[in-house]
Amino acid sequence: MVINPNTSESMTKHLSEALNKIKRSDTMLKVVCAEKGPETIDSAYHEVATILPTLEWVRRANEEKFDAIIIAAFPDPGLIPAKEISTIPVVGIEEAALHVAAMLGARFSVMTTLKQRVPSKREHVYMRGLEHFLASVRSLGQPTAENDADPEGTKKKVVEEGKKAIKDDGAEVIILGCAGMAGYTSDIETELGVPVIDPASVALKIAEGFVDLGLKHSKVGLFATPPANPFK
Amino acid sequence: MVINPNTSESMTKHLSEALNKIKRSDTMLKVVCAEKGPETIDSAYHEVATILPTLEWVRRANEEKFDAIIIAAFPDPGLIPAKEISTIPVVGIEEAALHVAAMLGARFSVMTTLKQRVPSKREHVYMRGLEHFLASVRSLGQPTAENDADPEGTKKKVVEEGKKAIKDDGAEVIILGCAGMAGYTSDIETELGVPVIDPASVALKIAEGFVDLGLKHSKVGLFATPPANPFK
Amino acid sequence: MVINPNTSESMTKHLSEALNKIKRSDTMLKVVCAEKGPETIDSAYHEVATILPTLEWVRRANEEKFDAIIIAAFPDPGLIPAKEISTIPVVGIEEAALHVAAMLGARFSVMTTLKQRVPSKREHVYMRGLEHFLASVRSLGQPTAENDADPEGTKKKVVEEGKKAIKDDGAEVIILGCAGMAGYTSDIETELGVPVIDPASVALKIAEGFVDLGLKHSKVGLFATPPANPFK
Amino acid sequence: MVINPNTSESMTKHLSEALNKIKRSDTMLKVVCAEKGPETIDSAYHEVATILPTLEWVRRANEEKFDAIIIAAFPDPGLIPAKEISTIPVVGIEEAALHVAAMLGARFSVMTTLKQRVPSKREHVYMRGLEHFLASVRSLGQPTAENDADPEGTKKKVVEEGKKAIKDDGAEVIILGCAGMAGYTSDIETELGVPVIDPASVALKIAEGFVDLGLKHSKVGLFATPPANPFK
Amino acid sequence: MVINPNTSESMTKHLSEALNKIKRSDTMLKVVCAEKGPETIDSAYHEVATILPTLEWVRRANEEKFDAIIIAAFPDPGLIPAKEISTIPVVGIEEAALHVAAMLGARFSVMTTLKQRVPSKREHVYMRGLEHFLASVRSLGQPTAENDADPEGTKKKVVEEGKKAIKDDGAEVIILGCAGMAGYTSDIETELGVPVIDPASVALKIAEGFVDLGLKHSKVGLFATPPANPFK
Amino acid sequence: MVINPNTSESMTKHLSEALNKIKRSDTMLKVVCAEKGPETIDSAYHEVATILPTLEWVRRANEEKFDAIIIAAFPDPGLIPAKEISTIPVVGIEEAALHVAAMLGARFSVMTTLKQRVPSKREHVYMRGLEHFLASVRSLGQPTAENDADPEGTKKKVVEEGKKAIKDDGAEVIILGCAGMAGYTSDIETELGVPVIDPASVALKIAEGFVDLGLKHSKVGLFATPPANPFK
Repeated sequence: MVINPNTSESMTKHLSEALNKIKRSDTMLKVVCAEKGPETIDSAYHEVATILPTLEWVRRANEEKFDAIIIAAFPDPGLIPAKEISTIPVVGIEEAALHVAAMLGARFSVMTTLKQRVPSKREHVYMRGLEHFLASVRSLGQPTAENDADPEGTKKKVVEEGKKAIKDDGAEVIILGCAGMAGYTSDIETELGVPVIDPASVALKIAEGFVDLGLKHSKVGLFATPPANPFK
Repeated sequence: MVINPNTSESMTKHLSEALNKIKRSDTMLKVVCAEKGPETIDSAYHEVATILPTLEWVRRANEEKFDAIIIAAFPDPGLIPAKEISTIPVVGIEEAALHVAAMLGARFSVMTTLKQRVPSKREHVYMRGLEHFLASVRSLGQPTAENDADPEGTKKKVVEEGKKAIKDDGAEVIILGCAGMAGYTSDIETELGVPVIDPASVALKIAEGFVDLGLKHSKVGLFATPPANPFK
Repeated sequence: MVINPNTSESMTKHLSEALNKIKRSDTMLKVVCAEKGPETIDSAYHEVATILPTLEWVRRANEEKFDAIIIAAFPDPGLIPAKEISTIPVVGIEEAALHVAAMLGARFSVMTTLKQRVPSKREHVYMRGLEHFLASVRSLGQPTAENDADPEGTKKKVVEEGKKAIKDDGAEVIILGCAGMAGYTSDIETELGVPVIDPASVALKIAEGFVDLGLKHSKVGLFATPPANPFK
Repeated sequence: MVINPNTSESMTKHLSEALNKIKRSDTMLKVVCAEKGPETIDSAYHEVATILPTLEWVRRANEEKFDAIIIAAFPDPGLIPAKEISTIPVVGIEEAALHVAAMLGARFSVMTTLKQRVPSKREHVYMRGLEHFLASVRSLGQPTAENDADPEGTKKKVVEEGKKAIKDDGAEVIILGCAGMAGYTSDIETELGVPVIDPASVALKIAEGFVDLGLKHSKVGLFATPPANPFK
Repeated sequence: MVINPNTSESMTKHLSEALNKIKRSDTMLKVVCAEKGPETIDSAYHEVATILPTLEWVRRANEEKFDAIIIAAFPDPGLIPAKEISTIPVVGIEEAALHVAAMLGARFSVMTTLKQRVPSKREHVYMRGLEHFLASVRSLGQPTAENDADPEGTKKKVVEEGKKAIKDDGAEVIILGCAGMAGYTSDIETELGVPVIDPASVALKIAEGFVDLGLKHSKVGLFATPPANPFK
Repeated sequence: MVINPNTSESMTKHLSEALNKIKRSDTMLKVVCAEKGPETIDSAYHEVATILPTLEWVRRANEEKFDAIIIAAFPDPGLIPAKEISTIPVVGIEEAALHVAAMLGARFSVMTTLKQRVPSKREHVYMRGLEHFLASVRSLGQPTAENDADPEGTKKKVVEEGKKAIKDDGAEVIILGCAGMAGYTSDIETELGVPVIDPASVALKIAEGFVDLGLKHSKVGLFATPPANPFK
């Protein structure tokens, strides 16, 4: 199950098409989107508003015995609580993208949407211990909805900022930390001459691998099942 | 306004009493608790379940023109989005406690509830750049509700684990990362011979200081006001 | 007791006026300055020359049973030995400013005097584990005495460098690591649009809070009382 | 192509069997071993002795247009030069294991062979920025050849040291940094109650994913093609 | 010129004898001790009390055109201001010992005097970026004067704590961060089986090398000459 | 014994002349070069190709009972295995240069050859824990052979890039991480006004000091003697 934490149906459709193209033939995908919450995520406030609807899908995926869950928004909203309440593997597209990027070059740059989102991306890289491998976070200067509405224009901006990241910041790999770019990876790669990572695609491959190996997240510490505290 | 993110009325009452004892005479406190959500927080899942009700109080505090807001649960649930949606200062009790502890000794230990909560506390310290000053995180081996229900027993456990933290881990300061201990700080301090930090008290003093100085969090980057994206 | 470690009477007077404006009504301040040593601090050599006269005041403050001590020069000269010989709380204005800045934004910049002082400021931030939150240290290009003599000109320089720090370095908070600016904080804040921290003011509020709570630094390790070794 | 950098035919055979069991049905594996060099790797000296024979296989894999290359010894001997001389993706089993472990729990422990190998494992984790996630490196107290010769005895030792890693060091995930354990992962997992990572298996899944996505390492910096300097 | 920052004549004599044994035949040593200040250094307070008398000797060494200066007390008191006021090279015995130790093994342990000195040693290692290479700081449980008065007893304690450092903390190198042990290095080395560093000896060799090469510290930033501010 | 890991006779001769000028009168040098392998090192591939021939010389130096060994190529090829197989001290010119640079200024810059070598230099600094002290790595834009062939032109480039490192990156010390510059250090120093480190010279002085003191690397962990595994 691939969960789009926002409520944008066009993004969910786009995501579904992109992932279906690159999935293995024996992988069955169900791509869902949150039933409530913001249409796009442009702040921590939007992030937290997506968490409970996302966890609701995580709960259902466990009930329905899916093999693996992907949380498909770049800030990985709700990833830790999702792993807590799930006994099936959960992969965040941000965590997958960052770890894979660190294998593909000495330093990577992350493309994000609005300028005010730069610090939070940097924090996420730091939290994963990978700040040493971060060349820069660069903003495209427009919110998620505009990225989604104008893929061609966004592609041009990614290429422009990507070139600066490579030349000025020493980036050897580019991560698309913004929606709506899944189908354009190879075009951008051709123009930039470095690997360009679509986080959702990478997460799907990691998830397929986990299922093949029977690998799951650990349940003894950070992701231990929550006790059944009373709720009001 | 002091917001208790959980829905436990006894904890809210206890918190209110403790803070009223140490507030400045000209400070007026309103201590509220979340209207929905878990009674106590023993997992990231519980944490995220408290965020939206907490943010609702943050919104009201802004409307009603409070001078400052304290989020009074140790994991600082919703602190970043709260700062995003607020133009009045917001202080998390965890951030206040960690920064003050780093001024009072070479290394501090954090007391937490269940053993499975240890990794998340360590992550929070790391996120604030203060891992170098962390002697250890030690668990009392019981959930928040038991801490709250049996303050005398909890006090004994804190003293016992605190002694080990000082002797074995090199702690010079103890942080009470668990509820229900506010009134017992000085007893524990006497037994341990090192400073013992009650996070809510420290946060109140930081908040009073911010108000005196007119200091607020920055609104240009990490805490910028979210754009008004459509919600479903 | 607020100790100005240098021997400049004009700076001491300025400091006294500024702090008296923002102190709580029930706080009584005694602002003193070192009786010997350099008039202004523009090197580590000047710093160390201020330490023994500063410690002499720390000794007297303990004798006279003050509630708290503030060491009011930005490099915090003698802060560790002061905490060693004092059983009443000692707050350094640099440590207070850095920790508070880390709560108010993702990254802060420090304004300093001469260009050659930049590396030592960076080292101080690193020592406190806060390098991750440092956007930059920027020099105003003039020694402390000139800052003090020409507050209007200095204010202009702070605004100019502050704008670069925000735009080029990603600063969200500005720390005035230079004397003589206490009364100008709000003007600069208005021009820059981000929080501007006057370290002495923040230290006063932290000290008031410590006194309210009875909090003191730990005496078991880094700040243990020195043994009475013989002196020549 | 899976390259075993040492010259042990029994280990190569064991590796081939283990990977063939977990490969995707449409993946074709060629498992080769170095033609010269040490039979097992128990020092940096042995490591460097395996590099040129390993690179020879990397060269051939490029000539024969394989889709991806796996270097299948835990210290990843020759990984950086292999990526330099290869335009097809190269995956090291150590890098794959460490990054995946960091997604599956708050902290992992690495099992190694001789006690004197502990520091080099720690260095490898540090080089990848993942030291924050390292609980410990633990030695089984015997060289690689003995691990390989006595899988049942080795399994017992892994379980014993793994239990200590979980209890005393806070490990939530165990990495088998030692040969000959590929077929025993699930047994050990059952006994330990935490995820146990076989590095070669994880690397195979990462490599399959890279091929599906057309992802390759960057050729513009750390892994740029070497200039054709003259050799003697 | 070798400056002993404390006023103990017996330690100065001991130091002089030890260094004269290992100096090069063409090196001429003048070993001096501070004319005022504490006899031994067991706190930061003692440290700062030694700085001005030490700097007085640094000034004289510059006047008398010595080739190099060694500050011969383990905390390197006044090292930064000494480099500021000196145009001839200044070597601290602590900085020399730590950097050399990092070349000789994966991790080192520092032996110190009183237990309360442990945190400050750890801070010094951290300041030099070498915390990753620190196995532990271990206390001998007695002040400097006792070390000096009873070298045989101290030697036994060093061996005892050194064995624990090697076995329990993973130390591969031992640094004698305590006075009076210079002549005993090789005995201790024999008993421990790992390199044992006498900081003063290592600093002498670094200083001899600097003189041979004409290498001096940089005067453009951290160690720039102080401006001539007025003193009271 | 000084081992030049590459096979360039002109570089070996140049190195021999430079070191003979600055060696102590009682030091006897044998400068050798690898018998096989690349003439110059411009990639990790070239590095690893030099290791076995270098280790062959290390073995002979041990047989012939030399006092110390210097590996004289900036990436320190084979340094760890050389220390493993040697019981006489081995000094790498890169490790010596980096540690000494960290004593001479707040931050240093490393000059390297081709632009694609920048990331690997940065990694080496990081591995030694000294990244905090790294101002920048700057490329001269030409391979090693050109540096060697045109020392005057290279000197000009070093001065040009060195000026940028000082002005733009905050470098206080320059390390010549490129061959053929040994004789030009003092010229460059005069033009730049900061210390300029020739790594081979510094390594020689460190080695002379180790011999004087009888200091050797530790043989209990990272550099333990390899077990005698069978080779094919």
